[in-house]
Amino acid sequence: MIQYFNSPEPLELERGGNIEKLTIAYHTYGSLAADGSNVVWVCHALTANSDVSDWWPHTVEPGRFLDHEKYFVVCANILGSHYGTTGPLSESPSGEPYYADFPLVTIRDIVNAHRRLASYLGINHIHALVGSSVGGFQALEWIAEEPERFDKLILIATDAKASPWTIAIDETQRMAIMADSSYGEPRPDAGMAGLAAARAIGLLTYRGGEGYNLSQTDPEGNVPSPGTQRPCTYQRHQGEKLCRRFNAYSYVSILNSFDTHDIGRGRGGVEQALGRIKAETIVIGISTDIIFTPTEMHALCRKIPGAQYAEIESAFGHDGFLIEHNQLNRILIPFMNNLKRL
Amino acid sequence: MIQYFNSPEPLELERGGNIEKLTIAYHTYGSLAADGSNVVWVCHALTANSDVSDWWPHTVEPGRFLDHEKYFVVCANILGSHYGTTGPLSESPSGEPYYADFPLVTIRDIVNAHRRLASYLGINHIHALVGSSVGGFQALEWIAEEPERFDKLILIATDAKASPWTIAIDETQRMAIMADSSYGEPRPDAGMAGLAAARAIGLLTYRGGEGYNLSQTDPEGNVPSPGTQRPCTYQRHQGEKLCRRFNAYSYVSILNSFDTHDIGRGRGGVEQALGRIKAETIVIGISTDIIFTPTEMHALCRKIPGAQYAEIESAFGHDGFLIEHNQLNRILIPFMNNLKRL
Repeated sequence: MIQYFNSPEPLELERGGNIEKLTIAYHTYGSLAADGSNVVWVCHALTANSDVSDWWPHTVEPGRFLDHEKYFVVCANILGSHYGTTGPLSESPSGEPYYADFPLVTIRDIVNAHRRLASYLGINHIHALVGSSVGGFQALEWIAEEPERFDKLILIATDAKASPWTIAIDETQRMAIMADSSYGEPRPDAGMAGLAAARAIGLLTYRGGEGYNLSQTDPEGNVPSPGTQRPCTYQRHQGEKLCRRFNAYSYVSILNSFDTHDIGRGRGGVEQALGRIKAETIVIGISTDIIFTPTEMHALCRKIPGAQYAEIESAFGHDGFLIEHNQLNRILIPFMNNLKRL
Repeated sequence: MIQYFNSPEPLELERGGNIEKLTIAYHTYGSLAADGSNVVWVCHALTANSDVSDWWPHTVEPGRFLDHEKYFVVCANILGSHYGTTGPLSESPSGEPYYADFPLVTIRDIVNAHRRLASYLGINHIHALVGSSVGGFQALEWIAEEPERFDKLILIATDAKASPWTIAIDETQRMAIMADSSYGEPRPDAGMAGLAAARAIGLLTYRGGEGYNLSQTDPEGNVPSPGTQRPCTYQRHQGEKLCRRFNAYSYVSILNSFDTHDIGRGRGGVEQALGRIKAETIVIGISTDIIFTPTEMHALCRKIPGAQYAEIESAFGHDGFLIEHNQLNRILIPFMNNLKRL
């Protein structure tokens, strides 16, 4: 069930300004142990929401790695998003929605909002912190700030700093949204054609060539008619699907947050920030991920003291973390059950 | 020097309709041998033109693989393009430019237009046929139709049929162009913001992650400000650059042609069509190409009788064929000089 926390105080933002009325939407699963020792905090990615059990199938289930009979699992919707936490469609101090005037929030700001929620929930120590993709950005940002607060860290297909490649992908999505001249108009459905195109761009990078070639091949002998082929209807369908559940302002806001990611900022650089991690860490790459490649995930792993590396074999690229839940559970259940600290 | 051929007859199109007034813009380099034995025909890719020496540095030079002191090198601008051959900005039978009403031309139509130019130039036999990317689509289409006409075939980063992955990339670019509501207006600069975004999408796939991470890294310590980072200004700059030299209607027309590509159509399938090739063939992959991967280039090679495979090592993905001219010359000069037929 979705719940809301209304912060009694404005949230100061890293790049200036503040969020005057901060609301955070969140989900919890299971019960907080009396000694507070069973908290698992999940950070969600780009267009997901706080309902982990919805967007990450077969994880928040008894016997799975996010077993809510054992753990108190928490996930909060991120700042700027569309799913209940303060974002561009929320009321600004002027009384109107922010829309394009929503301030720039960094990954650090997102984490600071979540730290406030943790206090409100009476959570001090967090047993395990989990993040994939932009969720991993938040996890790394948080653990770099409070390394003592966590026992375990699970990083899936993510990075300690947005790479030029990922920033180029984000800029391209922004260009597609800006190409839609309705973006900027003060209404929730502004820029929808651009948003659909942006989503289609994202999908290319989430799935990669192998994924498309496996799942979007037209039947043999079809006369190839541009725009009607399976990959075409798939791209448009996925674009339209996002438009029905999201808004272009939130999408741009989160892309912007993505591009600010650098846990080394103000901490003496990425390597030093990663070197502060004390939690038992597992870094998981996906064999065909072209956004966060296995090579880069290996490199990230090597910079975290004592971290171990595991890899998911998948034809579905970055999306593999959502699809290959069997492999993920096989890797992560023993990791979660292991009581020894490194 | 650009030259023009005006076909005395309309060009019937594979999918119906015709191009009433067919003009083909082309370049030639060197002189046709008296016995007609020294023709090298180069097929160009997406937004290139007929001036090979301009877009493919260090190839049309003495001692290089397109040595115009030895060969009579020909390249023709493709149907639908912006560079002199009949396209969406050309006058339609109504007296107005075609714009969005330019008919669908297939890769086969593009080749048929070029076959007409070859006849006009008095070229019968062609010593070597060269194509990379969409240029390779044309080369394969042509050689499947007239396998006896060619001695040598050079295929670089291309395929015998558009894959679901490449079609998805094209559809995403069309979505970005259509998101610009000015696309469709009867003017040459319609859809320019969409075209810029489409180009940026293309670039992501041409360069790939390694290319961006090598060349678009911001200086250490820069405060990451979304939209101002190097990869962002690079994407926008490249988008704007294309807008200054191309038009959105031509871009969509060529994407559409791309998606029709299937040399197996009407020839009993791809494998049978490739099996007809009699020319001595070299297939060249690029180590980091994510559009036409080395694995796929290997597979293409295996289906062409007696073909040999070579690979360019490059960090710059698909664009490697334009950048790594030294490696290309090292591979192709011996191939061109080898007089033996297989």
